[in-house]
Amino acid sequence: MDEFSLIQQFFSAAAINNGVVLGIGDDTAIIKAVEGEELLFTCDTLISGVHFPVDTDPYAIAYKALAVNLSDIAAMGGQARWFTLALSLPEADPDWLEGFSNGLFALANQFAVSLVGGDTTRGALSITISVIGTIAEGQAIRRSGAKPGDDIIVTGMPGIAALALAELQGSIKQAEADSVSSRSKLDFPQPRLLEGQFLRSYASSMIDISDGLAADLGHILQASGCGAILDTDLLLESHYTDMQLPADRIIDSILYGGDDYELLFTVPGALTPMLMKSWDLTFPALTKIGEITAGEDLKILDSSGNVIDIALHGYNHFHDRKKQ
Amino acid sequence: MDEFSLIQQFFSAAAINNGVVLGIGDDTAIIKAVEGEELLFTCDTLISGVHFPVDTDPYAIAYKALAVNLSDIAAMGGQARWFTLALSLPEADPDWLEGFSNGLFALANQFAVSLVGGDTTRGALSITISVIGTIAEGQAIRRSGAKPGDDIIVTGMPGIAALALAELQGSIKQAEADSVSSRSKLDFPQPRLLEGQFLRSYASSMIDISDGLAADLGHILQASGCGAILDTDLLLESHYTDMQLPADRIIDSILYGGDDYELLFTVPGALTPMLMKSWDLTFPALTKIGEITAGEDLKILDSSGNVIDIALHGYNHFHDRKKQ
Repeated sequence: MDEFSLIQQFFSAAAINNGVVLGIGDDTAIIKAVEGEELLFTCDTLISGVHFPVDTDPYAIAYKALAVNLSDIAAMGGQARWFTLALSLPEADPDWLEGFSNGLFALANQFAVSLVGGDTTRGALSITISVIGTIAEGQAIRRSGAKPGDDIIVTGMPGIAALALAELQGSIKQAEADSVSSRSKLDFPQPRLLEGQFLRSYASSMIDISDGLAADLGHILQASGCGAILDTDLLLESHYTDMQLPADRIIDSILYGGDDYELLFTVPGALTPMLMKSWDLTFPALTKIGEITAGEDLKILDSSGNVIDIALHGYNHFHDRKKQ
Repeated sequence: MDEFSLIQQFFSAAAINNGVVLGIGDDTAIIKAVEGEELLFTCDTLISGVHFPVDTDPYAIAYKALAVNLSDIAAMGGQARWFTLALSLPEADPDWLEGFSNGLFALANQFAVSLVGGDTTRGALSITISVIGTIAEGQAIRRSGAKPGDDIIVTGMPGIAALALAELQGSIKQAEADSVSSRSKLDFPQPRLLEGQFLRSYASSMIDISDGLAADLGHILQASGCGAILDTDLLLESHYTDMQLPADRIIDSILYGGDDYELLFTVPGALTPMLMKSWDLTFPALTKIGEITAGEDLKILDSSGNVIDIALHGYNHFHDRKKQ
């Protein structure tokens, strides 16, 4: 089977009517710009053995490759609209491609985002997806808007995906149910697009947690010229209470684990009660975990009220990345 | 040096004022949509050892990686505006990165296209660039508009880049001057953006030649539901006359070589004289090489007037690709 047949067979799903003037099959896609909208443009690469274990199901690989990109649109408060897929493959295995395209379109259809172009090449397995989203002019939530006194809030349970990875690597053992649910969070991160759009009315700054809560909060602090104080008890007491792992191990995973793609954002303190009251019950729970401060330090209080001195080490591809 | 420092040092060139609301450094870039414009969206991957020889100068690698993407915008008649860079690297070598970023921005600045985002990962050397271009609504030149009676015209001298590749692989030997100039065409393809924009008033269909003239013309014929007749003498007599290679070898390279990124397009016969007269003298020369016909066959006349029966084999990553 040749390259063109491959693309046609697995990736030519009818484009959702979504401003797509011309989809796959020409030199470029043609899509419609709308007055008063801004475009959000991002790309992310996933490489086998670095971003996912080499034996990962192709359905999950595709799902995650798209999810991490949609998550970047979510972190701006935008709507994901169109994407391209650059797929490098060691061989053209129809079974693998079928699983991959099923995973890709499962997520794409869920959020009505249209595949409009791509490129297939022979090489080591890697996937680069580029997404364009849209948002009303001036409404995007940047990293740079945090102010002293803002509350720091996070969606869901960051750190869980990293526990699955630690278990895969043999460094921890979880209860059976936690093992299954954490692996699901690692393989099928849920881009918080609806949540991000909801937060446009509240958040002063926002980021998605890919590198670990500490490092990603560090990006907000650096962009905003602020400091912060986090209370690790606030992180633990609402959730994680049924887990059998030591609290320190869980907190370590929350702060440094990453790969969950939960939203981390700041809200002016006066708006927090209204946000908590109006938050959609179908969304993952919100947890206030700290406050933005003047200055430049990130201080973390442990359960005894002592300050943990943290280095913002997070995820770094050329420095200290844990290979999968 | 860590990933973030790398990106900052080499890729944070000030974005040209180009509708960029927010450039590199947040979850996504923010760019401005304009009423009455359509967006052109495309991506292409270059992999070391497949799309360029492994010892290629990083300046040339970056230049070509961007050029092939800009060429897709050119083939629609559009203006290239913004791009993202997904760079997978085995190691973070500052010298290599400096050369790469110099090549990237040399071309980006020439066409005022802005780098607005990216992703750097550790892995085998590969580069995926995604570009967004703009064009006035309804003005894009698709592959599907060719009609019987249209002339088939090409810019410049397709096939030359493939001769450089053949020489690198040891299968031919060129005169010194031809060797140098063909290697330049292989390493530094010139995206025909201004030419493509000029052709909006004339061309009924257009494509850039990446896979070889025969295969790319095949894409036009398939999309347009037409056939064509090409005259190989027309290909040779205007150009290539000083070359010492046998005519058959040159024609083979023109038809099947690819990698030149010249524009191949069709023009209603009545418009051709006006096009030829108004063509900008700073643009590469135009050559009429055949005509669109009814039916579905691609017929190629050799110098004796015999029809060459060609299989549309072109470039195929999973089938018959010549490894570099």
